[in-house]
Parts: sequence; C-alpha cells; structure tokens
Amino acid sequence: MTQVASPVRLEAVETADQPKHTAELDMLYRSFERQLLIPLWTEIGDLMPPHPSSRALPHLWRWSELLPAAARAGELVPVGRGGERRAIALANPGLGGRPFATPTLWAAIQYLNPHEDAPVHRHTQNAFRFVVEGEGVWTVVNGDPVAMRRGDFLPQAGWNWHGHLNRSDRPMAWIDGLDIPFQSYADATFFEYGPAEVETLESPERSRSERLWAHPGLRPLTHLQPTPATPLLAYRWEYTDRALSEQLALEAEGEAVTLEPGHAAVRYVNPTSGSDIMPTLRTEFHRLAPDTETAVYKEVGSSVFQVFDGTGDVTVGDITWSVERGDLFVVPSWQQMRLVTEHGLDLFRFSDAPIFERLHLHRSHQEGTPS
Amino acid sequence: MTQVASPVRLEAVETADQPKHTAELDMLYRSFERQLLIPLWTEIGDLMPPHPSSRALPHLWRWSELLPAAARAGELVPVGRGGERRAIALANPGLGGRPFATPTLWAAIQYLNPHEDAPVHRHTQNAFRFVVEGEGVWTVVNGDPVAMRRGDFLPQAGWNWHGHLNRSDRPMAWIDGLDIPFQSYADATFFEYGPAEVETLESPERSRSERLWAHPGLRPLTHLQPTPATPLLAYRWEYTDRALSEQLALEAEGEAVTLEPGHAAVRYVNPTSGSDIMPTLRTEFHRLAPDTETAVYKEVGSSVFQVFDGTGDVTVGDITWSVERGDLFVVPSWQQMRLVTEHGLDLFRFSDAPIFERLHLHRSHQEGTPS
Amino acid sequence: MTQVASPVRLEAVETADQPKHTAELDMLYRSFERQLLIPLWTEIGDLMPPHPSSRALPHLWRWSELLPAAARAGELVPVGRGGERRAIALANPGLGGRPFATPTLWAAIQYLNPHEDAPVHRHTQNAFRFVVEGEGVWTVVNGDPVAMRRGDFLPQAGWNWHGHLNRSDRPMAWIDGLDIPFQSYADATFFEYGPAEVETLESPERSRSERLWAHPGLRPLTHLQPTPATPLLAYRWEYTDRALSEQLALEAEGEAVTLEPGHAAVRYVNPTSGSDIMPTLRTEFHRLAPDTETAVYKEVGSSVFQVFDGTGDVTVGDITWSVERGDLFVVPSWQQMRLVTEHGLDLFRFSDAPIFERLHLHRSHQEGTPS
Amino acid sequence: MTQVASPVRLEAVETADQPKHTAELDMLYRSFERQLLIPLWTEIGDLMPPHPSSRALPHLWRWSELLPAAARAGELVPVGRGGERRAIALANPGLGGRPFATPTLWAAIQYLNPHEDAPVHRHTQNAFRFVVEGEGVWTVVNGDPVAMRRGDFLPQAGWNWHGHLNRSDRPMAWIDGLDIPFQSYADATFFEYGPAEVETLESPERSRSERLWAHPGLRPLTHLQPTPATPLLAYRWEYTDRALSEQLALEAEGEAVTLEPGHAAVRYVNPTSGSDIMPTLRTEFHRLAPDTETAVYKEVGSSVFQVFDGTGDVTVGDITWSVERGDLFVVPSWQQMRLVTEHGLDLFRFSDAPIFERLHLHRSHQEGTPS
Repeated sequence: MTQVASPVRLEAVETADQPKHTAELDMLYRSFERQLLIPLWTEIGDLMPPHPSSRALPHLWRWSELLPAAARAGELVPVGRGGERRAIALANPGLGGRPFATPTLWAAIQYLNPHEDAPVHRHTQNAFRFVVEGEGVWTVVNGDPVAMRRGDFLPQAGWNWHGHLNRSDRPMAWIDGLDIPFQSYADATFFEYGPAEVETLESPERSRSERLWAHPGLRPLTHLQPTPATPLLAYRWEYTDRALSEQLALEAEGEAVTLEPGHAAVRYVNPTSGSDIMPTLRTEFHRLAPDTETAVYKEVGSSVFQVFDGTGDVTVGDITWSVERGDLFVVPSWQQMRLVTEHGLDLFRFSDAPIFERLHLHRSHQEGTPS
Repeated sequence: MTQVASPVRLEAVETADQPKHTAELDMLYRSFERQLLIPLWTEIGDLMPPHPSSRALPHLWRWSELLPAAARAGELVPVGRGGERRAIALANPGLGGRPFATPTLWAAIQYLNPHEDAPVHRHTQNAFRFVVEGEGVWTVVNGDPVAMRRGDFLPQAGWNWHGHLNRSDRPMAWIDGLDIPFQSYADATFFEYGPAEVETLESPERSRSERLWAHPGLRPLTHLQPTPATPLLAYRWEYTDRALSEQLALEAEGEAVTLEPGHAAVRYVNPTSGSDIMPTLRTEFHRLAPDTETAVYKEVGSSVFQVFDGTGDVTVGDITWSVERGDLFVVPSWQQMRLVTEHGLDLFRFSDAPIFERLHLHRSHQEGTPS
Repeated sequence: MTQVASPVRLEAVETADQPKHTAELDMLYRSFERQLLIPLWTEIGDLMPPHPSSRALPHLWRWSELLPAAARAGELVPVGRGGERRAIALANPGLGGRPFATPTLWAAIQYLNPHEDAPVHRHTQNAFRFVVEGEGVWTVVNGDPVAMRRGDFLPQAGWNWHGHLNRSDRPMAWIDGLDIPFQSYADATFFEYGPAEVETLESPERSRSERLWAHPGLRPLTHLQPTPATPLLAYRWEYTDRALSEQLALEAEGEAVTLEPGHAAVRYVNPTSGSDIMPTLRTEFHRLAPDTETAVYKEVGSSVFQVFDGTGDVTVGDITWSVERGDLFVVPSWQQMRLVTEHGLDLFRFSDAPIFERLHLHRSHQEGTPS
Repeated sequence: MTQVASPVRLEAVETADQPKHTAELDMLYRSFERQLLIPLWTEIGDLMPPHPSSRALPHLWRWSELLPAAARAGELVPVGRGGERRAIALANPGLGGRPFATPTLWAAIQYLNPHEDAPVHRHTQNAFRFVVEGEGVWTVVNGDPVAMRRGDFLPQAGWNWHGHLNRSDRPMAWIDGLDIPFQSYADATFFEYGPAEVETLESPERSRSERLWAHPGLRPLTHLQPTPATPLLAYRWEYTDRALSEQLALEAEGEAVTLEPGHAAVRYVNPTSGSDIMPTLRTEFHRLAPDTETAVYKEVGSSVFQVFDGTGDVTVGDITWSVERGDLFVVPSWQQMRLVTEHGLDLFRFSDAPIFERLHLHRSHQEGTPS
C-alpha cells in the first residue's frame, strides 16, 4: 500500500487544536450529553490511532498452572445442562476482566472426568478443539463420533450439534478456540440446546467425515458444492507431522518450501475450497528446526499460540518468555513477534485473520521487507 | 437454516446447574482470578444467548435538534488539524457513553461554515457522506473534487486521502457514516495526516470519477480489475430518484420489481463487482408510496436510517416514532422493524450487513415467511 | 509467463525424426487406420504449432456491398417459422465455406422490411444486436420490447425468448453477433420455437429492463444475485458516446484514463458483476481521436470489428484496408492488428475473449511491452 | 431450467419456409458466394438443432487390440525430437479421420520401451496420464520426477515442462488425455521445445509435489494463492481405492454418500480450490459394486472412459458393449449412457465438463428426475 510521507509529527498534533475551554463550550458539551451526542474532536486520538493500538496485552498462561486448575474444577464443578461445559477461559489482562483472550478470540482449557459427558448443543460461534496431550474423548458432531488424541485438530463450525464423551478411565483436557468475543460484540449469536446426552456411544478410530473426506485431492461426487466451513472433522497429527517433516526435508534438498530458513508451516484448510477451515478462524501449525530464529513479524488481527512440543523463547512486543509444552500465549493486533529455539519448537496457532482478509482490512509486515 | 425443536425451556435452563456454593469453590474462583481465568459456566447465559440480544437500544435523534446543535458547534468550535472534523456523533444510550450509533457503526452530523475547510487525512475506516439538505461543499478525494448536494450519496472508502471545502456563503451540514466502532473494537485502524488544506479549489459540477464511471453498464478498458470498494465517488440524487420512481411505475404496470407492495428500494453498488460499495458497509435507499405498510422484518447486524423526505411511523422493537425529514434512528441487531406511511416516505439506510454476509453470519426474517 | 530460450530451430525440428518409410511401417499405419487410430508423431506439427496459427483469415466486408445484398434478400426471401431470420452471415474464406466469421464467432447482417416481424424462439447461443444505422425495430425479449437505434448495443443472452418487429415504414438492418460456431463445434446447442409472432405491439422509448437497471451504481433490492449474463437489454448510444468523450476530455486534462494516447475505450459489462455481458462474448467500443495510431497488438482469440463512424486504415497481419462506416473486418487469433486514423474513428468490437480468460488460455501482447 | 411447451412439431418446421426456388434467388445465392456470405435460413437446421447432436459417435477401443498396436509401434517407430511421443490417438469415426476422440478431447495410448525416454517440451494444452497397468516410468515435470504405477492419475497442466523416462527393463504403456482438439479448434495453442533428455535420473517413490501437497486438508504457508491447475502431480491409487471403498462401506452403514445405490465416485480436485484439476478437464473415478445398474444419464459435453477393473455392459445411445480391463469408450455430448455390472466395475473417466460449466452451458439429465 502506498504511504505518503506524513508531514507532521503525530504526537504534537494529537493534542493540538482542542477548542479553548469556555463557559459557552461547557454548556454546549452538556447539551450534547443530554442529546446523546459526542464530538469527534475530543475522541479522535483514541478512536483513530495512527496504527492498531490494542487494549489487549501480550500474556502467557503456563500449562503447568492451567492443567491443575482445570483438574481442581473437575473435582468441584459438575458438567451439565445450563453450564454446558467445564471450560475455563483465558482472560486477557487488558480487556477488563472479560473471558476474552483477545477482542475477537476465546481460548479455554476444557476438562472431562472419566466417563463424563458434556451435553449436546449448537451455536453460531465457530469452534475447534486442539489436543496437546491425552486421549479417550470422542466429540460427537451431528451424530458422527470423532476421536480426540494428542496433536489432532478438530474443527466444529457454527450451527452444528455437538457434545463430548469421555470413554476412558482417565480424565482428559484439551483447548477450545472460538470466536465468542467477536460474535458477542457484533451481536450475531444464536444458541440452541440439544439432547442432554450425546447421541451415540460408538468410539471408532476414524469418524465418518474422515472416511469421506480425508483423501488428498479427492472429493465425493455427492458433495461438489463449496461449503463455508470444512466438512472434515479431524485433522490427524500423523498427517500434520509428516507435512512439516517433509517441508524441512525438502528445504534441506534445496527447495523453497519453508516460510524462512528452518521454519516449516501448514495451514489447516477446507478441502472444498482450499481456504480457511471456518469463515472467522485461521488455524496453523508451525515447526521450527533446532537453532532457528524467525524474523520479526506483525499483522492486523490477534493470535493465540499453544506450544505443542519443544522449548524456545517467544518475544511479543517488549516481553520475552521461555516456553514449553502446553503453554499458551497471546499476540495482540499489530504487536511484533519473534521466535527463537535451540532444540526445536512445535507451535499450534489460531487467529482471526479471515475476518480481516474478507473485509480487506488485513495488513502484515515482516522485518527486512519493504512496508 | 434447519432448526430442531428445543426440548427444554430456556429460562429454566439458564440458571440451572451452577455448582453449589462452597468454601472450596470460592477458593477455586479466587485462584482463577489470580491466574486470569474465567469459567464458561458462570458466563454462558450472557455470552451465548439464544438469539442476538444487543446492548444497543433503538433510538431516534431529531434533525430539528441535531442541526441547531451542530450550528452552535459551528460558532464555538474551530475545524483544523488534530480535531480534523466538526462532526458530532450519535451515542447509542445502551453503549456506555461511547460515540457509537451501534456496536459497529458511527453516524454523525458534520458541519462546515461558509468558506471553511476540513484538513486532508486518510484512514482505514470506510466512510461516506449523505446529504439531506443544502449544498456548496466539495469533498476532495485523492485530489478529485466532488460536489455535495441534497440527495447525493458520496462514498469514501478506507485509505483514500480526503478533505472538505465549503465554497459557498452558507453553512452546510450532512451526515457521515463510518465503521469506526467496528475497526476500533477489532484493532484494525491506521490513520495518516495529509495537507492541512485541500489540494484544489476547483468546484466542477461532476467529479472526474463520475465522468469515468457513471455510465450504466460501461467500464473503462483501463480499469478492468475489480476493486474492493467502489471507484465511483458520487451517486447523484437524480439517478436514485429516477430508479425508485421507475420501480413504483413498473409495479403499477404489473411487474414484480418492488420488495413488497408500494416499497421500492435500491442498493448502492460498486460498478466493478455489482456488490456493496465498501467491504464493511451497505447503503440503500427505500421509497414507500403513500398508504404503505411494510412487513415486520429483522436481521443480524445493525442499521441507521435517515428520513430523506415525507413522514411516517417507524416501529423498532417496542418503540414507535413519528418521523420527518432529517430524523435519524437506529435498529439494533435482530430487533423487529416496521414502517407505515400515509403520505409517502423516503429513507436512506446504512448497515454493517456485508460484515455478516462475508463471514456467513447473516440471517434475516420477514413476518409471514418460513423461518 | 516465463519462457526459456528454445535451443533448437523449430523449422528444422518439425520435419525431423519421422520414422523411415518401410513396408512394415506402412502395414502398421494401415492397421492403425482399420483400428481408428492415428499416431501423434505424424500430426504434431499441425496440432501443436509453436503459437496459434488459425485457418481463419483476416477479411473485410464492405457495408456498401453488404447492405444492398441484404436489401435484395428482403425482396426475394420471406421471414418466418423455420428459416426464422433474414440474416446473412460472414463466411471467413479460411473456414471451408461455413457461415463462420471466425472459428467461434458468427457475424451477420439482419434485415427486416417495413412492418415485418421475425418469429419468437430461444436458444443456448448467446447473441446481441448492434445498430450502425436506422431505427424502427423493437426486439422483444421475454415480452419486453426494446427499441433499436443507431449506436445501441442490445444483448440477448442464451435461452431468452426473443423476436423482432419492424414498427416503421422503412426497412431496417443491423448486425447480429453470436457464438454459434463455438457452440456448434462443442455440441452445446439447444433450440426451441416460441410463438410465430412477437407477444406485444408496444413500442416504448425505453424497455422495462432499462427502467430497472440503467441507473449507474444502483441495483434493485429484488435482484441481488449475480446473473451469468447481463439483465440490461439495451446499452444506449447516448451513454457510450458520452463515456468515450469524457475519457478523451479527461486525457486532455492529464488523467491516465485512455488505453494509449488518443485511444478511448469502454467495455459493455453486466451490472450484476462488472464482468462481460455474456459468458462467451466480449463487446467493446473504441474511439480514436484524429491523428491517432495504435500500438501493434495481438491476443489469443478472435474478434470482429464494425466501423461505426469516421475513417481510417486497419492493418491485420499483412493486410491493410481503408475502412469507413459499416465496414466489418475479422482479426483471427494471435494476428497482429494496428489502427491509424487522420480524422477520427469509432469502432464497435466483439470477441470470444471470455472463453479463453475463463479457461486460463488467454494471452495478449502489445508492441513495446515485455512479452 | 424452465421450458415452455413447444407448440409446433419440429420435424415439420425444420424443412418449412425455405423460399421458393427461382432464377432470381439463384442469382442472389451466387452473389452471396462471391461476397463470402451465407444465409442463416438455409443452414439453421444444422447449426441450431433442438438439442446437441454431435457428429462424434459412441465408439469402443479394446485394450486387447490397442496394446499390441502400441507394442508394434515400439518396434518400428523411434521416439525423439520432432515426433516427441510414441502416442497413438483414438480417432472418433464421426470426426472425419482426425485424431480426436471427441470434438474437444484427445485420448491416446503412449508406449515407452525399456530405458527409453521422451524429450522435454511444454504446451498450453492441459494433459494427464492414467495408468491401467505396468510401472517403471517416471514422468518429470519441471524437474520433479513422478513415478507412474497402476491406478495412478498424473495431471500435467498446460505450460509445464515435462518428459518421460522408462527406468525399467520392461516396456510400459499408459493413456494420455488432453484438450488438443479444443485448443486446436479455438486457436489457443503455444508449444516450446525443452532439452532432448529429461533433466534428472532420480527415481524416487514420491515426487516433491506429493511431499508438499498430498496431506489431506493441509496447505503449505508458502503456497496460499489458488492456482488454475492442481500443484499435486500424482494422485495415487492407494488413496483413490480407499476413498471408493469407504463410500461403499458408509453406504452399507446407511449414509447417503454414493451417487446412487452401489455407485461410488470421486472427482480428482485441485487442493488449492477444491475444483477441477485443470481449467478444461474433469477427471473422476467410478466404482460399481457387484449387481449394480446405473440410471440413464446424459449431459452436455463429451467423455472418455477407461475400464480399470472388472467387467460390465455399457450402453451409449443405442449401442451396448461388454467391457473389460483397459477398454476405452467415448460418450458424445447429450448421448444417454447406462452401466450394468454383475461382478463389479471400476472406471476412470475424463471429460470436458469444466469448459461448459465455466461458460454456463452445462446441462445434465438423469432418468427419473425432473428435467
């Protein structure tokens, strides 16, 4: 995007030119209040900053603290109709005590005790599960039971019926990602209750959706229309892992298939369109080879990352954390981010980028490239 | 969309199943607070209501009060760098004193004294002007001066340089519509200052954009790529008026070209794509013939209407107002609306519907049609 | 498109490497014939030339000869069911005596005597009329009577019912353009008879389609879905002429809105999408200011031009013609073309370019630009 | 599509209304000839039939005859620069001795002797290979060697460099499908020679394209733009076979995932878009369970089928063949087709359907459904 040189120092300007305070002006402002009117000239600095300047803050939640908190809730809080889920949300410290990881994204740890289930409902919010450890739960989507295991990504697009059932003798935890804050703010939410118990006790290795859709480059002739969200309900770790390994292997053979040296990455996509798995959510998996350091990057829109494996140092804005398996961190809009790893780092990421791309509001910048 | 019967009374459910209050639970909740965690089960009723339930309220601002308020600001408040515009925003009474007509939409009256100008800037927010009365101002977009007159709709898509100049001996007021609240909430805003004065003193009848683009069904061969926003900078009243009159005339001849009996309507569109003039804003003009009554209608997303001509009764939710020229009113998401007129009613409307349509979150319902 | 250096002289190669003629080979070729088999190696030079090498030839038909031929047919040949139209097609001298202007395009002069009509039918072939002189005929499309006058472009997309009626006391001629050769070759044609006489004797100034659609940037709310072909049935000369004049005037004011100096051009587009008026046909109008000379240009796909006004010299491949009002000429695929005019030249053009663009087979080249 | 009742018997009409033969008319027709003009009224029956009426005929080529013919060519005809490929094309008996399976499609058997190679070239024609038996050849596409084995489908979109190399001690044959007739007719062909020998002697199990792209629902972050043709160069039999088996298994479990009872089918798609693998070619694989009989089906556009496995009876138009492994047959546009099998039948299919769909000319009809 062409940007002309700005001829004026912004800081100087921003406080300039407020009209001089007088009794008459005071009276005008009071009459505005009575009329439910607010002048632009007193608000513009906050409303129209030179670049995105989010109230959300970079923040890290450690898995070593999250998981015990969820387990304790498992002891004290039942799951059932009304509360619906034993899910505990990350509350960004900049967002006023609301259960929002960012202004648009919800991120939570969900926890089911052995043989416990979470009742069936549906909502317009787009959702997914990602499993950093454990197994034994089947999430049942429109009657199709989908096994959940370490490394699996399980999308549940808006308005599909779904419940969860732990078929094992051990508790299981995973993370939920949704667009709850966005839909809540924008007033787009519908919600309906289904049965109090999941419709089926089947626990197959592969869901029906996988049997129909998880064949690369093949599409059933009965399903030729593009759908807004992916019909594939499980993206198995086996494939994700292999795709990332192959990118690094191809890079070693001289092919330009990585984002930057040592940095492999895949996006989870809707096989009916090749685009994001849901209209509001982007999900990706990033693998950094040992001794890799990424370029500094920023973009419009916010992200949540979960460390899947390995260790490394993450810098977001001015803060640096050392991270390990299960840790979750938030990158607000237009905040710079950099990753460094000595022993290798696997990261799951989700973001609200499709919202901005579809509305032509997306911008990104990588250090060392022209702006 | 298929909706299954909900087997449970929602009201009963919503308060059900909160875990019993105990000292241990209290301790858990306090530890959640320290960890910046919030349970879903205590928040779900607010976050995931059965249908959109906006904090924004239906509200009416009367032109007969707005215009004097703006004129008084014209006496007391200068226009210049920093404050940028003498624009006074409608502040929805449900939105906590913020200058937001709805959670996504900004609506303001803007006022320029004779021979006054508003400095050049650009921002990612999508904007437009609509003129309910007066003339004499030229808005200059990327150096192209565009006359503003009663009935004209003047889009100014994000990231175009623009300033305004009153070339006449009389003040002029108009309304501004923007997506400021949406972009502010979602952290997508960029802003840059341009020159303190508009680049040109030309005051042509027709802008260059009109001379290039305002020919029905014709496209310059130098401009064949679709653009996210319309390249046409003025939609003149002459054409809008004629299009609406013809719809009513064709209806009288037996053609099915009106939305419902006596209700003509056009959408302003981008001639490069036939779709909305900007990625986040929809703009329309509605004409009700005398003795017309619309069906009750609701949709996801919010709207602002301005009465352009005529009189009528508007019902939004439980409130009914008698409206006349210049009056502005707000329809929050999923609130029912109905219009009745005895002598005819012309209405300009803008909404955030493209946001919801592009994200597959749009729904609408008209009384008497299947849900 | 990247093109590597070709290491071998093509001419040398093309005749190379045919297997040596022997009795055994002869026997093999005869057995191929019996089996309905043909080797690639004997055909490849013809089937896969280094660039498009059309059998169609550049050719010019003079209006001064076409119009009398049509008038003579008006004396001798009735119009009616079965023959359907008094249309006389241009037969490209390279295409073996078939009524094809190019391999994909049909171009014909159609002629109606005073008060004569052409019966109603419909077909999958996309069609249009363009009027170089005269008036008095209404073409009736799905019951909507559309006046035809000098300079008007009148699209009739496939599968719409249509007939023509001369309401005046003078004969009228115009040109028809269709994709008959393409659809005939590709076996896509459906055809149905309607009434023997047009459904209405109305002769309004403006068709209903114009009253609904010919308003720049406005779209009826009852018609929001994009349609494959334009719903606007008449593109009036008044608008085309003005759009072209404005381009030249804007160029004189320093704006970069012409294709090249002195060369204004518009494309007729579908207002529901901003793209070509029909899926297989592109139509444009070109205006060359006095003393203008175009760059040499070529593209994949073929075109037919009709001189609307003025005079000039047209070079296609190796042939140059001096042209004047009504003359029609053909530009085969990948043949170079150049236009020169001393006193100004107005040209209507139609082509098959959408076929190639939609199938990702389009290429073009303008002299002086990188290939 | 709405179709009105046709009020007139077509046969009666088609010969009606030719003008009475006279000396004057004869003179007119002779002058038309001199002017390169042809009347519509004498040609319309042939040009605009009531439905597609292809010159192409249904025809069957038996693998038991094709393969020996190719092997004999292997003894007598070398492969090299100029002839380029030892490919022998099916020549439809209705198409005047041209090497065209249908008006748009080329189908050939290609044959390489042990350790023989076919030189590198590229062309705008879209191509693919399908292997009914054998292995040992690597097709090298832009330097990426792709193994070819029974059941594999190997797309080679237009303008990619490619050559073939037999690395084994046995000959290998396969079928080529291209859009040569279409591009030849429409004058869209470009062709370039590359090196006389393939660039690499590598013979990996999996091509680089597969290592990058053959992961269901995953997309490399370095390749996010949709491409007109698929970037995946091999669709392996293992996946195709499994997808079809799963469809039949899911059908047995009560899921509606087959085209009709016992009839499983997949389309090969471009993973960047979910649509056809190339802009002009559709490719599918159909599996009929034992004792299956399909509904009678017809569509606009032509197809070529190859029997991959099993046996059955195929009816096209009025002809029925008993088919077995390797047999190839042609279905012209709008010809009825039905399949019956007692022991099961696996069929590979390719067609020109994307041409018609992209140009809004596609229609299909299945017996027992409304037209």
